[in-house]
Amino acid sequence: MAQNRLGGQTISFIQNLPRITSRASIVGKKEGEGPLAQYFDKILEDDLWGEKSWEKAERRMFIEAAQLIMKKAKKEPADINYLFGGDLLDQIISAAYAARSLGIPFYGLYGACSTMTESISLGAVMVDGGYADHVLCLTSSHFCTAERQFRFPLEMGTQRPPTAQWTVTGAGGVLLSSSGEGPCITHVTTGKVIDFGIKDANNMGAAMAPAAADTIRAHFEDTGRGPEDYDLIVTGDLAKYGRELTIHLLKKEGYDIESRFIDCGCEIFSEEQDIHAGASGCGCSAVVLAGYLLKQMEDGQFNRILMASTGALHSTVSSQQGDSIPGIAHAIAIEKKG
Amino acid sequence: MAQNRLGGQTISFIQNLPRITSRASIVGKKEGEGPLAQYFDKILEDDLWGEKSWEKAERRMFIEAAQLIMKKAKKEPADINYLFGGDLLDQIISAAYAARSLGIPFYGLYGACSTMTESISLGAVMVDGGYADHVLCLTSSHFCTAERQFRFPLEMGTQRPPTAQWTVTGAGGVLLSSSGEGPCITHVTTGKVIDFGIKDANNMGAAMAPAAADTIRAHFEDTGRGPEDYDLIVTGDLAKYGRELTIHLLKKEGYDIESRFIDCGCEIFSEEQDIHAGASGCGCSAVVLAGYLLKQMEDGQFNRILMASTGALHSTVSSQQGDSIPGIAHAIAIEKKG
Repeated sequence: MAQNRLGGQTISFIQNLPRITSRASIVGKKEGEGPLAQYFDKILEDDLWGEKSWEKAERRMFIEAAQLIMKKAKKEPADINYLFGGDLLDQIISAAYAARSLGIPFYGLYGACSTMTESISLGAVMVDGGYADHVLCLTSSHFCTAERQFRFPLEMGTQRPPTAQWTVTGAGGVLLSSSGEGPCITHVTTGKVIDFGIKDANNMGAAMAPAAADTIRAHFEDTGRGPEDYDLIVTGDLAKYGRELTIHLLKKEGYDIESRFIDCGCEIFSEEQDIHAGASGCGCSAVVLAGYLLKQMEDGQFNRILMASTGALHSTVSSQQGDSIPGIAHAIAIEKKG
Repeated sequence: MAQNRLGGQTISFIQNLPRITSRASIVGKKEGEGPLAQYFDKILEDDLWGEKSWEKAERRMFIEAAQLIMKKAKKEPADINYLFGGDLLDQIISAAYAARSLGIPFYGLYGACSTMTESISLGAVMVDGGYADHVLCLTSSHFCTAERQFRFPLEMGTQRPPTAQWTVTGAGGVLLSSSGEGPCITHVTTGKVIDFGIKDANNMGAAMAPAAADTIRAHFEDTGRGPEDYDLIVTGDLAKYGRELTIHLLKKEGYDIESRFIDCGCEIFSEEQDIHAGASGCGCSAVVLAGYLLKQMEDGQFNRILMASTGALHSTVSSQQGDSIPGIAHAIAIEKKG
């Protein structure tokens, strides 16, 4: 078996341990009014940010987040070997046009809201394997671009059901490096596409929860670790109902994660912000990781985190053609090492 | 510098050299009437293939191509560590729903028509670095699903201009393995997003040619190789005008590739098939590689190929908002080794 495989769906890094040496997050106005506001680098004053379209505002968030990550690390685009990134929009135009501006060799990804940990998984392989010294991993989403693409024109003012999630306006990411200071990526557990038959695009948490539970279970089985080996287990954007379902599904597998489990979609907004079940979007786990979680690790609150961003892999066409919504989750272990 | 980097945009494989140990291609009726018909494993009788939608037919091509690759290699899904794949459709639903059926850990990619070499690039890193023993790399496209998504409903019967390309209906891919028989992936040159300002979605060859030329130039500079080091240089789907432009752009850089340069988009259909400038689509370079090119290598016609699939990274929304069409190309060197 390949030397870095632990078996199953998990690999471990033992060669050039990838470190998170820089991070940045930019969020929208609403996110900037939430409980994590202090952790974000930049908060937009409005959803357009002076651009002519929401899509161009999202692209600019992606570009500026990338530039901020590099600036903090005192790196130029020429120092970066690869940009791994994606977003929710058709043909991932936020990431692709941002890559055009940045001029960094680009691998475009689509994992819906799992893209943050998908990009870190592949970026970490590049660094650990000796194929890169510095890799940028970024994602973005925007409430207004996602809502009109996946659901209804905002101008319609459609009423949202209680299970609906609010797409985060934000871009965030990290720099993975073969040297320098920062927590390490030690394991990657790659997700399978799991489908429990949910067809309601306003209940994405339930569609993604089975994938989250499956990947977390695989991670425990492959590594021999359990919930108690982590200070915190984090999912991407399952929100309230998806989070409960994940706890339930993992209990059935013999793993009780409840006491140390948070979901980014439950953290970024407060109850008073009236966003219903919680948050979603590629940008959700991206800015919560790059803003809040990594700051908590720096401050010594957590030393070992298991993080699984979660994605729903449907499209409007697949839904119109009667398909259910499959989910995927990619897990990464982030650990402080000397 | 990371040990496997040659500098610039190129890495070389020296650890567990990835080999192409299996391959398969499925194409549509029109492709099956073209000059490469004999090289494809399966030819559809019509565009729907008994399914209820073109999208479901494309998905089935993806699944059956994957199954055929595994069958030829006597492998089961449980033997495959990763599936790297993508397609042209919004949210890459062909690849994602195929991954659901196949049950293999999945990394979803979006590189438009560059996805074939994007998937092989990343799959090869996984094998060479010791993170995987077997990786499936696949892409698909379908004329009917792409045309109605990117341009017009087919029912309108819109007249196509001379620069228009015909999206290939087909799915193809390869199995990369750490052991076994087959040609090796020796180098990967990752593309940057390049934009010369083309805005015409019916002239994709011109939009992608600058990216193809840029990546091929980078490959030569990084490796110290030149056109004469390859028996064949292949691009993905530039078609007639894009192919000419690439030759011209590389001549300005001091590289004359014309005598050993083919474009998959010029090979798969004959002049008599009246497809205008040539073919395009993720499936184009996928089936030409998996069908024709690798067979030619097996038969000793070519020992060393440089292949760069080429993608146009726009969407209908980016075009509607006045953006030009950026291109990307990822190059892989395929070599016969003992």
